[in-house]
Amino acid sequence: MDGMTSPAELYHAHRELLDRAISAASARDYWSAFPESPSKKVYGEEAAPAGDRAFTALLGQAFPIDVPGAVGSVSTERSPYGIELGVSYPKADPLALVAAARAAVPGWRDAGPQGRAGVAAEILRRLHARVFELAHAVQHTTGQAFVMAFQAGGAHALDRGLEAVAFALAATTRLPASAPWAKGPLTLEKTSTVVGRGVGLVIGCTTFPTWNGFPGLFASLVTGNPVIVKPHPGAVLPLALTVQVCREVLRDAGLNPDIVTLAAEEPGDGIAATLATHPDVRIVDFTGSSEFGDWLEANARQAVVYTEKAGLNTVVLDSTDDYRGLLGNLAFSLSLYSGQMCTTPQNILIPRDGIATDAGRRSPDEFGADLTAALDKLLGDPRRAGGTLGAIVNDGVAARLAEAGTATGVIHPSTAIADEQFPGATIRTPLVARLDAADEKTYTREWFGPVSFLITTDSTEHSLRIFTETVRAHGALTALVHSTSPSVLAAARTAALDAGVHLSENLTGGVFVNQTAAFSDLHGTGANPAATASLTDDWFVTGRFFTLQSRRHLPTVDPS
Amino acid sequence: MDGMTSPAELYHAHRELLDRAISAASARDYWSAFPESPSKKVYGEEAAPAGDRAFTALLGQAFPIDVPGAVGSVSTERSPYGIELGVSYPKADPLALVAAARAAVPGWRDAGPQGRAGVAAEILRRLHARVFELAHAVQHTTGQAFVMAFQAGGAHALDRGLEAVAFALAATTRLPASAPWAKGPLTLEKTSTVVGRGVGLVIGCTTFPTWNGFPGLFASLVTGNPVIVKPHPGAVLPLALTVQVCREVLRDAGLNPDIVTLAAEEPGDGIAATLATHPDVRIVDFTGSSEFGDWLEANARQAVVYTEKAGLNTVVLDSTDDYRGLLGNLAFSLSLYSGQMCTTPQNILIPRDGIATDAGRRSPDEFGADLTAALDKLLGDPRRAGGTLGAIVNDGVAARLAEAGTATGVIHPSTAIADEQFPGATIRTPLVARLDAADEKTYTREWFGPVSFLITTDSTEHSLRIFTETVRAHGALTALVHSTSPSVLAAARTAALDAGVHLSENLTGGVFVNQTAAFSDLHGTGANPAATASLTDDWFVTGRFFTLQSRRHLPTVDPS
Repeated sequence: MDGMTSPAELYHAHRELLDRAISAASARDYWSAFPESPSKKVYGEEAAPAGDRAFTALLGQAFPIDVPGAVGSVSTERSPYGIELGVSYPKADPLALVAAARAAVPGWRDAGPQGRAGVAAEILRRLHARVFELAHAVQHTTGQAFVMAFQAGGAHALDRGLEAVAFALAATTRLPASAPWAKGPLTLEKTSTVVGRGVGLVIGCTTFPTWNGFPGLFASLVTGNPVIVKPHPGAVLPLALTVQVCREVLRDAGLNPDIVTLAAEEPGDGIAATLATHPDVRIVDFTGSSEFGDWLEANARQAVVYTEKAGLNTVVLDSTDDYRGLLGNLAFSLSLYSGQMCTTPQNILIPRDGIATDAGRRSPDEFGADLTAALDKLLGDPRRAGGTLGAIVNDGVAARLAEAGTATGVIHPSTAIADEQFPGATIRTPLVARLDAADEKTYTREWFGPVSFLITTDSTEHSLRIFTETVRAHGALTALVHSTSPSVLAAARTAALDAGVHLSENLTGGVFVNQTAAFSDLHGTGANPAATASLTDDWFVTGRFFTLQSRRHLPTVDPS
Repeated sequence: MDGMTSPAELYHAHRELLDRAISAASARDYWSAFPESPSKKVYGEEAAPAGDRAFTALLGQAFPIDVPGAVGSVSTERSPYGIELGVSYPKADPLALVAAARAAVPGWRDAGPQGRAGVAAEILRRLHARVFELAHAVQHTTGQAFVMAFQAGGAHALDRGLEAVAFALAATTRLPASAPWAKGPLTLEKTSTVVGRGVGLVIGCTTFPTWNGFPGLFASLVTGNPVIVKPHPGAVLPLALTVQVCREVLRDAGLNPDIVTLAAEEPGDGIAATLATHPDVRIVDFTGSSEFGDWLEANARQAVVYTEKAGLNTVVLDSTDDYRGLLGNLAFSLSLYSGQMCTTPQNILIPRDGIATDAGRRSPDEFGADLTAALDKLLGDPRRAGGTLGAIVNDGVAARLAEAGTATGVIHPSTAIADEQFPGATIRTPLVARLDAADEKTYTREWFGPVSFLITTDSTEHSLRIFTETVRAHGALTALVHSTSPSVLAAARTAALDAGVHLSENLTGGVFVNQTAAFSDLHGTGANPAATASLTDDWFVTGRFFTLQSRRHLPTVDPS
């Protein structure tokens, strides 16, 4: 399959997968195209060591990728696990990238929706063939532990990419490419052509470069746009691998490889802003800080801007019939990847008079002690703890954690954990602090990282009011409620609709509030300030293309 | 059906129509739900006189509609046909309208997509029952001749409204309201709820208040948003009738009538700007001048903004095998409603060495003379001419026409035509002037109204280049090419894709470039500056709502 294969042939080859993905995206039941377990039973004996060797071979080298107009090179990454990376990339010239992208438009337009989806599916297939290598790249740039990097950064990211392909293919083929029209004696043939909006720009983040980057990349590609991929200087390698694969597939399909290019830069070069405001860049996908996301929304006026920023993920505690399950589930949610997920709960609201549980009524003090104990139990074994916590991605998170540690009310301080395999790793347990509902200056600020607050409120009703008001104002990607009362659950659902956030209810087992599954869970809503769209729905793809019609009379058929 | 009928019952009652509309919107073949002929054979003996009486009864009266928070009244309309209207409307208080709309949100959200579509279909049914009255209202505010007002302002507007209902219903029901999810032992029930973006604002225009207003109104309603309808002070009555019917239907369905309200103002009050920038107004639909449309796009930052503005509709003449058909078709397109359509051709490009036709090669001089003759033939009989031309909508159009008349190169001056039924009517024939390709200062400006230019170019290739460049820069809603050469037609299709405009080819019969049919033709593209979206496609509806999920474990079933 690595010889010359046309986009139409790639569509034919991947048609079954694409049809299945479209049907899964519509049914919203559980489906995954890429196995999430890195075990030998699934991937064979050789996959893991081969991926390890491929990753190691990249270290200390110039990454093999050609970038139109690049001058010099940059090397900007630092492993949160403390190993030397030393990978360098061509340093991008933004104007040259835009010019190269524009030049690639006509051929990509002519490939048509199915051809583009075929190319996208082949890109995903070849990325999947390198998923162990990709997982190492994600681990050593984001600080995700290896298994999580394999899942969230590998298999699940590929699923999210395929989901975007499915939505984009469905949306661009919903109107027929050609349709006859007859009104009495008047007859016309009408043709519809999908045309991309312009050059797409994907601005990656440090924590989930692939999981958050793939949806925009594949949505823009399949809807007919060339894409410039601008990784965060701290997490270039996963996206460089991605762009390398994209360009290989495009070349092998006889297409201009500049349909996808890499924009690597020195920290502080600011080429994201230069690119995002270029008149030919018409689509911007961004994941990262609220500050730059808001700036993009305000300034990238020539583009449609899809941002996923940050917010105040909230837990409302009312009552439970599985207290032990609640504690274990919540402790894991706070600990997973050291709370460095845009979906990790920050604000945990509990009524002053406590919550009813199957273990008796628990006051806020008691609940705080129980949660602390649950965290200590979960993270008691350093080896297992490291696999859950991963490493601290950068100095910004570390600084916030230090700042939170100086405050009063800390009931679970953050502690350092050593890693046998990577002695240079920066691993920390989560911090939990007690606050009162009146301390809103503290808890309405986002503390991205392993910092959460247990906040005492007057009542569950008060908790729901704080939930709605703070999320409406500051955004959130997730919310969780625990209650055994149908009326409280109904009120929580209404509050979540008013707040504009997805809601999880009574999670006490193996499903966590911070995880969303492709083809089933929407991620982000657009209905609160944390994001302008969901991953992935029709709104996320329909702004990336236009449908242009042409019409002409059909030749008159002689009736004789 | 006029008693209390729930949204669900209305959906049930109109289900067949809604299903048919969704299938037509997808097939794109010819379909219409509302007969376009005002003849007695279709509507019966009584419909026309009853509509006439109903319209006449409105004149000189306070229009019977309640508007929350209104203070005093306004009376701002002037019939282009010269009759006294004297209808007054409650003068709106923008803040009171927004507050009333917000208060109506929860009940409208709870009605659900199907319930809202049922309500919308019932509104369309009751508007259709008043279509003759509506046609008179359109005629005497816009200046459209009666039959055109009945069609474009009545039946076709209702079709465009139903099309928006169909797209909105399809988009809001594409994800299942509830879906089970199972991954090994983990099982969840997931619920999806459609939530409107916020308060919708529809800003009407003077020329097509219903045809251009209905899509945004119905798209916002069915996706769960209350809508404030802000008519142009010159064309209030058609939209006041519409809002009156909306409120009746909402009341009869047990819903808050403030889901739709009317915002009438004095000219110059500027409440459109006040409303469009209000933090709670999250959707703006606008049809009108590029100047205010551009202002809205730049300033209504808290909202998604759908504009249809103006542009340089272009005709590229290369060759034809039906010269007589070409001339008749083009003359009609220039004359219909005195060129006061956003789709009327303005710039007609012809090569310096003329065009090949079945009547021999015609130089630009000869073509100009032939087009002039075709216009004079079409408009020679004043009675028939009035039915085609309608009346000049306002002083702005009259002033532009006067300005164009003072220029050199006029080959068909505009003349006044008298109307027997309405002696006060302002009726004018179209003006055509000769220009050279170098006169771009004149022809890259939009001359909304009966002003067109026959522009000499170096070649068809040059014409196509001018077409692409001017439309990319200034926008267009329509384009037309005449050629017998497959390669020129192919080049014209590529040029139209590059320009971002829909293309008509070789229209010589009863289909005109300025007409688009609901359920088949997209109107506007979003791909050039004349509009930010099409009427109607998924992009036009998906920005109006969010899908919010909630999820919970299913009760475990005891396997014993």
